[in-house]
Amino acid sequence: MAWFRNLIHISGLKSSVKVNPRNMSFTTALSHFSTLPSPPSATAHNYYSGLGPTKPDERPRVVVLGSGWAACRFMKGLDTSLYDIVCVSPRNHMVFTPLLASTCVGTLEFRSVAEPIGRIQPAVSTAPGSYFFLANCTGLEADKHVVRCETVTDGVNTITPWKFDIAYDKLVIALGAEASTFGIHGVKENAIFLREVHHAVEIRRKLLLNLMLSDVPGISEDEKRRLLHCVVVGGGPTGVEFSGELSDFIMRDVRQRYAHVKDYIHVTLIEANEILSSFDDRLRRYATSQLTKSGVRLVRGVVKDVKSQKIVLNDGTEVPYGLLVWSTGVGPSPFVRSLEVPKSPGGRIGIDEWLRVPSMQDVFAIGDCSGFLESTGKPVLPALAQVAERQGKYLASLLNGIGKAGGGHANCAKDAEFGGPFVYKHLGSMATVGRYKALVDLRQSKEAKGLSLAGFVSWFIWRSAYLTRVISWRNRFYVAINWLTTLVFGRDISRI
Amino acid sequence: MAWFRNLIHISGLKSSVKVNPRNMSFTTALSHFSTLPSPPSATAHNYYSGLGPTKPDERPRVVVLGSGWAACRFMKGLDTSLYDIVCVSPRNHMVFTPLLASTCVGTLEFRSVAEPIGRIQPAVSTAPGSYFFLANCTGLEADKHVVRCETVTDGVNTITPWKFDIAYDKLVIALGAEASTFGIHGVKENAIFLREVHHAVEIRRKLLLNLMLSDVPGISEDEKRRLLHCVVVGGGPTGVEFSGELSDFIMRDVRQRYAHVKDYIHVTLIEANEILSSFDDRLRRYATSQLTKSGVRLVRGVVKDVKSQKIVLNDGTEVPYGLLVWSTGVGPSPFVRSLEVPKSPGGRIGIDEWLRVPSMQDVFAIGDCSGFLESTGKPVLPALAQVAERQGKYLASLLNGIGKAGGGHANCAKDAEFGGPFVYKHLGSMATVGRYKALVDLRQSKEAKGLSLAGFVSWFIWRSAYLTRVISWRNRFYVAINWLTTLVFGRDISRI
Repeated sequence: MAWFRNLIHISGLKSSVKVNPRNMSFTTALSHFSTLPSPPSATAHNYYSGLGPTKPDERPRVVVLGSGWAACRFMKGLDTSLYDIVCVSPRNHMVFTPLLASTCVGTLEFRSVAEPIGRIQPAVSTAPGSYFFLANCTGLEADKHVVRCETVTDGVNTITPWKFDIAYDKLVIALGAEASTFGIHGVKENAIFLREVHHAVEIRRKLLLNLMLSDVPGISEDEKRRLLHCVVVGGGPTGVEFSGELSDFIMRDVRQRYAHVKDYIHVTLIEANEILSSFDDRLRRYATSQLTKSGVRLVRGVVKDVKSQKIVLNDGTEVPYGLLVWSTGVGPSPFVRSLEVPKSPGGRIGIDEWLRVPSMQDVFAIGDCSGFLESTGKPVLPALAQVAERQGKYLASLLNGIGKAGGGHANCAKDAEFGGPFVYKHLGSMATVGRYKALVDLRQSKEAKGLSLAGFVSWFIWRSAYLTRVISWRNRFYVAINWLTTLVFGRDISRI
Repeated sequence: MAWFRNLIHISGLKSSVKVNPRNMSFTTALSHFSTLPSPPSATAHNYYSGLGPTKPDERPRVVVLGSGWAACRFMKGLDTSLYDIVCVSPRNHMVFTPLLASTCVGTLEFRSVAEPIGRIQPAVSTAPGSYFFLANCTGLEADKHVVRCETVTDGVNTITPWKFDIAYDKLVIALGAEASTFGIHGVKENAIFLREVHHAVEIRRKLLLNLMLSDVPGISEDEKRRLLHCVVVGGGPTGVEFSGELSDFIMRDVRQRYAHVKDYIHVTLIEANEILSSFDDRLRRYATSQLTKSGVRLVRGVVKDVKSQKIVLNDGTEVPYGLLVWSTGVGPSPFVRSLEVPKSPGGRIGIDEWLRVPSMQDVFAIGDCSGFLESTGKPVLPALAQVAERQGKYLASLLNGIGKAGGGHANCAKDAEFGGPFVYKHLGSMATVGRYKALVDLRQSKEAKGLSLAGFVSWFIWRSAYLTRVISWRNRFYVAINWLTTLVFGRDISRI
């Protein structure tokens, strides 16, 4: 009790301080520490059994791997009176990806597009058997109904990651995909992807650093031009929206706040084929003309090599850059590649019409990490937020049905009624191209007929649509406030 | 012109794209690059002459070192029709320090307390002869009227820092102070200070990581208690406000969003003497009782050693911690220590009644880095924002007067009329203690009589006072919005 004896309250004030019971217990807890030589800490060699199998009289446990659109929509829809939920992910929030490009230049703030899991499904923070674990899934033993995990301790070196197991009754794999580099050398080292909030933070910091450094005496004209050359590779919606945001930022904020270097900053968008290939020709023409008007240079080219200050195209052209953003699409993650299950075309986890992984009992896969098996006769769906969201919603109602019918526990749903299979109906695509202009394509497929719009009205639809889809009221409010302040005061340029 | 020949517009859309003159010039610029073997880059070996002395027919140049309260208030007040301003600082924003503690737990957002220099004094981003340079000052040659600088390129490895010189007509040193460790081993390595936005980011990230890791299976009870033990060293306003914010966060948000671990988290505030020693006894008693009620343990102790998972007090008590915040006051920075000028008591740059550095022509020092020389017979002023702000304001009007009288250029103000000396009148102190309670002490000194308040009314005064003092309307608006959303939705817990 050395600690307790040494606890002296601020002496002059002693008389007025009441030691309440809560503090007493804490004191006792602390005294417990000081008698130990050093607090025991979990190490990587330790393997903890974690959460064991649920008993028949306990609530069945659904383990969800991932925290993207699919996982979050699923967790939101799952009936927590039927199931305990355990979510395993290296990040504790969902990223509202369609608005991520806007955060890179400060149109929106980072936190306005990040939604904590605990706000999407409060049970993980409060219900006794439900949890969120900040960890990566490292293995799957389907016959034992167990996933192996390892904690994520990035940025902190006073604690060593440790491993643990979680037994599941139902497993939902919603790990998403990872940015593809097509095996091009130097992409991972030198380019920044645009898939997570920390990517957007990195882009914003680098852009502001380059803007400031290019204004310092001693820099050559060439180096200044290089530092302020922003290159975007990939002409899909992300690449186009980011280019549009960047040119808005240059035209409005750089001219005003970095007047000394405003003539040196340029944006180039490199795409091997056509930009926005999923949109109709008229919209693509409109996007091209809008981007060009905003000063974005559109270049058709294939990147061969990425070095630290320049990229090399297939025809040998060298393009110096100060900021390189890579958004050329996605491919399966290492964990998905390592899974020994039948795969869909493209290497995703193969699923049947009910989103089940057929070779494993009680395992489902949704979102970008999964694709219909060829045997289903259905095409692999595009890696879109709306596909993932729809699958999450479908699977939640499927598992709610099974849970109600008493099939929630492991191996109890073999003969269950699964209801109708998952059917995807494309609702249309949207993309903003900057300067209060956007494209809205409401056709169900590229060949189908339907409404397509471009211009200010689309931009207004785009903003309203997203504003109503951001999940919490808090973030809806912040997105609206961010848009308003950007309009009134311009974007924030502090580099923090 | 290899680059230009290879520039092929998205082919299907070629017809609709007009290559405007602005793009043409950019293309030419790029083609220039591709003929070079590699773009020349400035290296640390290169030394650039930077900005040379101003000519008599040019506007005189004021160089400001730093971007804190003193520097920013000075720049805001300086007449840009009389002077060019060059600001040199490693950060491009001012931190609104009194509200920084609130950002650590998400009551306020980081950007709400950071004000870009370009918004405080727009001339640095737009006027032809005024600049902001992201750099550190590395040396001062007072006889040549030159400062030596080196660029800051943190976080980016594709560009090497380079050195350059700036000639000044007037130099204002406002470099602030740095956190003191009192030579205690391990503080710099293991504790987090609370002086910059990146410190607050680090505290928030670590706190959320510890909260999440303590919920993962495999962690021992002791380790969980250690991870969630937040220790604050230093009972000044910063330490007290941070402890108050932390206990608010625990009582409101942790209980709701980290219900599994809510009984394991505790806050200890360690102070060698009395907390809030500059406030009157009644207010200190009130603060002590408020903090204790909120579950903050107040401990009188002197830290002897800081290890990675525990601190050791003078009497041998070991206190395990998961988060350690150090706010024990400030001392002179290495640059100030290296300056060979007469110093004030405490090692600050010695100044006379007009804030001049007497041994150097045209050099002034304001804020925490400066103190009255003993020969002035005045006491060294406390390291407070209000002192720095008042000095910045005074010096701006002093230099405006000199400039108007034609003494703006180097060595032209030797016989100028300096007007009245700087007189400091203390307006009072404020500190919040959490739970909508604050202290307001409006006495001019500890011995003087005057108004002192504690409680909800003070808290309301505290908030209103800060809200009107945050420099830009944008940030005033955001602080109000942040406070509102914290009240309605709770604090944001996404770890981004």
